[in-house]
Parts: sequence; C-alpha cells; structure tokens
Amino acid sequence: MTETNRLTQLFGIDLPIIQAPMAGANDAAMVIAVSGAGGLGSLPCAMLDVDGLRQQLETITAATQQPFNVNFFCHKVERPSPVQDALWSEALLPYYKEVGLDVSEPVAGNSREPFSEAMCELVEEFKPAVVSFHFGLPEEALLMRVKATGCKVMSSATTLDEAIWLEKKGCDVVIAQGVEAGGHRGMFRTSDVDAQSSLLVLLPQIIDAVNVPVIAAGGIADRRGIAAVQGLGASGVQLGTAYLFCHESLISDLHRLALLDTPADSTALTNIFSGRPARGLINRVMREIGPICDSAPPFPAAGTKLTPLKSHHEKNASTDFSSLWSGEGYALTREFIRRIPKPAASAEDQLCRIDAARLTILLGKSF
Amino acid sequence: MTETNRLTQLFGIDLPIIQAPMAGANDAAMVIAVSGAGGLGSLPCAMLDVDGLRQQLETITAATQQPFNVNFFCHKVERPSPVQDALWSEALLPYYKEVGLDVSEPVAGNSREPFSEAMCELVEEFKPAVVSFHFGLPEEALLMRVKATGCKVMSSATTLDEAIWLEKKGCDVVIAQGVEAGGHRGMFRTSDVDAQSSLLVLLPQIIDAVNVPVIAAGGIADRRGIAAVQGLGASGVQLGTAYLFCHESLISDLHRLALLDTPADSTALTNIFSGRPARGLINRVMREIGPICDSAPPFPAAGTKLTPLKSHHEKNASTDFSSLWSGEGYALTREFIRRIPKPAASAEDQLCRIDAARLTILLGKSF
Repeated sequence: MTETNRLTQLFGIDLPIIQAPMAGANDAAMVIAVSGAGGLGSLPCAMLDVDGLRQQLETITAATQQPFNVNFFCHKVERPSPVQDALWSEALLPYYKEVGLDVSEPVAGNSREPFSEAMCELVEEFKPAVVSFHFGLPEEALLMRVKATGCKVMSSATTLDEAIWLEKKGCDVVIAQGVEAGGHRGMFRTSDVDAQSSLLVLLPQIIDAVNVPVIAAGGIADRRGIAAVQGLGASGVQLGTAYLFCHESLISDLHRLALLDTPADSTALTNIFSGRPARGLINRVMREIGPICDSAPPFPAAGTKLTPLKSHHEKNASTDFSSLWSGEGYALTREFIRRIPKPAASAEDQLCRIDAARLTILLGKSF
Repeated sequence: MTETNRLTQLFGIDLPIIQAPMAGANDAAMVIAVSGAGGLGSLPCAMLDVDGLRQQLETITAATQQPFNVNFFCHKVERPSPVQDALWSEALLPYYKEVGLDVSEPVAGNSREPFSEAMCELVEEFKPAVVSFHFGLPEEALLMRVKATGCKVMSSATTLDEAIWLEKKGCDVVIAQGVEAGGHRGMFRTSDVDAQSSLLVLLPQIIDAVNVPVIAAGGIADRRGIAAVQGLGASGVQLGTAYLFCHESLISDLHRLALLDTPADSTALTNIFSGRPARGLINRVMREIGPICDSAPPFPAAGTKLTPLKSHHEKNASTDFSSLWSGEGYALTREFIRRIPKPAASAEDQLCRIDAARLTILLGKSF
C-alpha cells in the first residue's frame, strides 16, 4: 500500500488532492466541483453562522455523494481592550483622514467564530467524511463528539511540536503547513513567526515523527511542486492559491488581477488584517504599517477598522487596503494555470479562470 | 544530456554536490576532501587576507588536481557613523555591564573584505575551476578579468529578479538560495527579508527564467531533500549545514553541541551578528535584541562589539552571544548524519563527526 493509498483509502477519495478551505473565497460550489472530480473539497465555516452552515451543507449533500471536508477555526476568542482599540484607531487615523472617513464611526465586527456546540450538532447531523480545524483543535468534549460521528479529523501543524501534539490528541491526518502557505498560519503552540519552517524542512520532520498520513501544504504550485513533496514523502497535497484562479472562487476581480499582475516574490506574512499572521500579496497598508504591527488588536478584531478603508478604496479599483491572500508560489501557479489549454469560448477570459473540477483532475494526474 | 550532466560537465566534477563556502567554518582541508571525493569543495575567502588566501590556494593545489571553487564576498564597504556606533554600544551596554566588561574599550574589527584587485591577481595566477560570489557580483572590470581566466562564475540569487540579473551579467551558473539556508543571505537587489522566498517556490521560478544550470541551496538535509529539488529541476545541490558536522569543519565544539541538541524549528534570520541578515540557531542575544534589530550597524561592523561578549561567554561554555549559523534543516541533517554507520573507532564520538569525503559520496549517490 503506497502512502498515497493510505490517505485516499482513509478519506474514501480517488485523488490525494485537497482543496484548501478559504474563508471568504470559496463556498459549496467549489466543494461540489472538487469532491465531484475525485479530490477533497473543503467548506470553510469561520465566516458562516449556524443557518448559513446548514444551508451550505444542504447544498453540498444535495449535489454530491462524494466525501468532503468541513473546516472550522478553533481560536480562543479574545476581545480587544479599549486601549488596544484606541491605539489601532490612532494608527489608521491618517488613512481615514486621507479619504474623509470618520475613524470614530462604529463598524460592524468582521466575525470569525470558533467551532461551537451548535456547529458540532450540524456535524453530527450531516456527518461529513472529514472535519478539519485551524489554530489547533477544539476542546476535548467537542472533539470527542466529532470523532464519535466517524468523521476523520485533521488539523494544520506549522512546527514539528504542533504535529506531534495533534497526533497525540487524536488527529487522523496532519497537514504540514509550510511557511509558504497563503492565508492564515495555523500556528497554535507558538506565536513566533520567525521560526516558522518552510515545507522542505517541516514536511520530512513531521513524516519522521508521526504515524498518521501527512498532507503537504504551502508553495505547491504545479506538477514540480507535487513531485517535490512526493520526494519528501507526502501522502497528499493541499492547494489554496491554485483554486483562487477557479471559476468557483469568490475573490474579487481586483484580487484576481493582483494575482495575475504582481511580480514574483511579493508576498509577506502580515497580522494587520486580522491580528493573526497570514500570507498575502504586499500592498500599501502592509508596507506602511506592517507587515507585522505590534499594535494590531487580537484576532479577528484588527480587520474591523480596516473594512471601511478597504470598501472605499476598492470602489476606486484600489487594493491598497484589501487582504490579498496568496501563497508564495502565486507566480508559478499563474504560469501553470495559463499553460492549461482553455476551451475556445473562454480563451478571451482575461482573468484566466479554470474549472475547479478540471484543475483537480490535472493535479491528480501529477501525484 | 540530463540536467545533472550539464553542471558536472561544465565544472568537470563527478558529483553535482557543492560544499557551501562557510567563512570561519571551513578552509583548504574541507575543500581537498570534498573535491577529492568528486564533489565541488569551496574555499571561503571573506576572512582571508591576500597572504592567507595564497597559502590556502597553495595547500589545495598541492593536494588535489580536482576542480574546486573559490568564494568571495562582493559587498560595498560601508563604515558605521559615530551615531550608529553609539546606538549599538548603548544597545549592548547592559550585556557588557552584566559581565563587568567595558563597552568603551576599542575592539579589533571583524574584517569581511570584498573581492579586490589583489585577490583577482591570485585568481588569475591559480585559475580555480570555479569562482563564486556572494552579495551579487564584483564591478564589471574585475568580473571580466575573472572570466578571462576561464574560471566558471556563479553567484547566489535569493529572488527571481536577482537570478535574471546574474545571468545577464554573465554568470555561468546561478545558485538559488532558498530562505532556508544557513549563514548570510546573498540578497543584493532587495533588503526586504519578509519577501525572501523558500526554495520550493524560488527554484522552479529561476529554472523557468534562466538558461544556465541552477544549483539548489537551503534546507536540503538528506536524500529526500535531494529528491525534492531534483523533482523541481535542480542541476545540483549546495549544502552547508551537513558539512558543519564534518571532521574538517572548523566550528567550535559549542557550536557542534548546539547543532546536536537544539530542538527542531529554532533558527531565525538575524542581522545582529554582522549587520546583514543571516540564519542561525536562536540564542539569548537574538531573542533579546533581535532577531532583526534596526540599530545594528552596517555589514560587517555589527559583529565587532559582540566579539568581547562572545569570547567571555564561550569561556563559560555559553553560546548566548555566538553566531551559531545553521540552515533550517539542521534537525533533519543531524538525524541523517546519525544514521550513517561510523567506523568502530569513532562510534564513541559524541560530536557525531563524519568525513567530508564520505558525506560527499553519500550525497552524490542520492542525486
């Protein structure tokens, strides 16, 4: 039994290709496409309320019988203090003034809810094949309930120590999230961004240390990236940035254009959009107050005060204040996507879109 | 002709294994061992004066007819201003006080000389098969003289942009230095540490963009690392950390013990030991005033004021103020070295030393 079979057998999927859950960037449509093609589609739930989650799960289960993954954040909710709020408003004040917005105006919070009792009930009801967590694992009692449903459980490790901890707590699969990965780092037993490892080092260390199958994530852009992590011993791959290019991706056209136009080597880890380190394309606000800013309020509150600036500037076709999540490998990814022959009808598509199902099958052939 | 052959044919070597030049950590002895075994040994020259360089070159050429590499820094020398010196002394003052040292006492500069006219004359006299540069390339006139000798020229690229620039300026080979690499980053067209790429992303980008052979460097710890970069298309590999474990390595026993004992995932990029970003094991001074400190004087002056602290603490078996250069993959590397069967006589060697020739041959079998 090859390593590949270990993972595909465990999940009941055909291809060891996992579509990364991307809160705000994908919903049921992408899950249906990826799982329908034989990979593992992932529904990100951090920005859904219970009704929204039920609706998404109903949509998926009505459309496909294939296994899919439901992803939850499991951070501890920490509200910013008035002092933290004031410092952050002060840091952003010049940008508010610049465009005539009022920094004292209240803004609706950009909610990122951790896994809860109510969400757990939906997991028990719908029994997805796989449940994945980010920022560690939920409290023991909830985790046991998830496992009791028969769902396979996985979570991201950004260090060797986190991987060992996740296996010990009962994860069926560990995702090795290299520092190359786009979006939020799953780090939960360290807050030291400097010592986050690249996939080339992290992946074999984790494979040596745990017995469960390990999925490689971060910086995998094309067939060569898949060949590389196979050489390192990965049982499967998780890709996010590649799926941002898909028809089913929910990112703005501005975000798509930035992924297509930004020169190579222009991402950084930043905490200013949420309070937690996440990788995205470098833009004005990251350059000017980040990429890491000590006065950013705790997750997810930092993003709230940026929302009016983002909205204002996006109306003027500017992404100066938008979180443009992207892995390090976006320039390789776009070349890979560009080389895929497109149907004649979409040859003119300047945004270089591809079907998530087709992408999944192409990636699967490379593993 | 495979990619492997392209590089080995160009250099006239048997194995596409390059021992990274490590100023202060290796001299002629390691070059002789590695080149004698069929790889490419590298002599680091940044800490040698002209007489010292001549002596090393005579030692090598007396011992081996095999091709070897001579490595030079080519930074612009920038002396710190009195204000920079004062700020740095202030930052280090508490540490001087702690052990009763006088911060106003002059310290001999820790010289790192860039490639010069006099060194070029030695290159013309000894005609090494390969000359490599770090921090870009020397001025046009000197570079032309080096190339006129028939030496093959290479340099490190830390971004796609740097690789394209190096090929355009006449490099015969480009080294893709991933962010995983230990010691000084070769960065020369950017000073932005945040946007430095990992090898998984950098290497295929560079391979796609240049026509010359590309050597992979950074985070390659064992056979799996070699398999991975072969999957990405590398023509050869450059390893530094693995060679630190060799008998021929000049690092202190304290440095060896740190490489053997430090838990995984404990390196960072720091500028405090020299003024330029370099990767090493995290220690007390990096944690307390770094790892990146804005008041560190320009390269290489920052290290000068740390020398008395390093000497004092090393006498007490402490590496709290030592630069413990290491790539990200040191924990994988030590496991690889440990698994290599040792001759009975050295089985008791607690420092886990191996011969550089043997290591080179073992790595060569993996390519």
